Amino acid sequence: MSSPSTTPNAYPYQNEPKWSKSEKAIARTAFDAALELEFQELMEETKRKANRVKEPADLWDLEHYLTEHRKEIDRKYDYRYSQLTHVFGRLLYERRVREEDLHGLGEDKLKSIRSTAEFFAKYAA
Amino acid sequence: MSSPSTTPNAYPYQNEPKWSKSEKAIARTAFDAALELEFQELMEETKRKANRVKEPADLWDLEHYLTEHRKEIDRKYDYRYSQLTHVFGRLLYERRVREEDLHGLGEDKLKSIRSTAEFFAKYAA
Repeated sequence: MSSPSTTPNAYPYQNEPKWSKSEKAIARTAFDAALELEFQELMEETKRKANRVKEPADLWDLEHYLTEHRKEIDRKYDYRYSQLTHVFGRLLYERRVREEDLHGLGEDKLKSIRSTAEFFAKYAA
Repeated sequence: MSSPSTTPNAYPYQNEPKWSKSEKAIARTAFDAALELEFQELMEETKRKANRVKEPADLWDLEHYLTEHRKEIDRKYDYRYSQLTHVFGRLLYERRVREEDLHGLGEDKLKSIRSTAEFFAKYAA
């Protein structure tokens, strides 16, 4: 029982901006650097948490912490071009990428990225 | 579609040995001490593993290690009197309890415990 689309036969992401070769290179570098930073922070915090373990419940807290972060990273770092402006918007809000890391992207993409960052700032406040 | 039991109306554990008050006290002490030792070892090994983390995959190995040990401990430390001779048999085989920790239990129980320990020794070899 699917309802008819308002834009029949349209490619779902037809309004998504196209990414040029140089934009893809910039995106890949910024994305990988943010992910690397995320992993570094997670490894450091895991060591801190493990070294503070004093009782069995702390072990299951650590397990839960790792599970939640694995899932969050999987969700957050979605390298599909249809998702990338949202991904970078969140990373910009979280200060995991800076505007200068994105220098060279088209103004259409930067606008969308800044808009997503503002959305996060508004709803996280 | 349940098949008829060969011993209809029998209480399922009617052949299990009864545990006297003093036997229950001995069992509780030995059980708790083994569990405490298990947790101490797990906490120490978790710290070692965490401090050796060098890359993201090591984090998920640590998560998996904790999950597996949590499940194994849940399965292994089953303090039902119907299960206790099996539990102590395994712990005896693993040298987490010693025969002297069980001193005071009836010979029927010690026999069953030793038999389970021998079973583990045979099939783990």
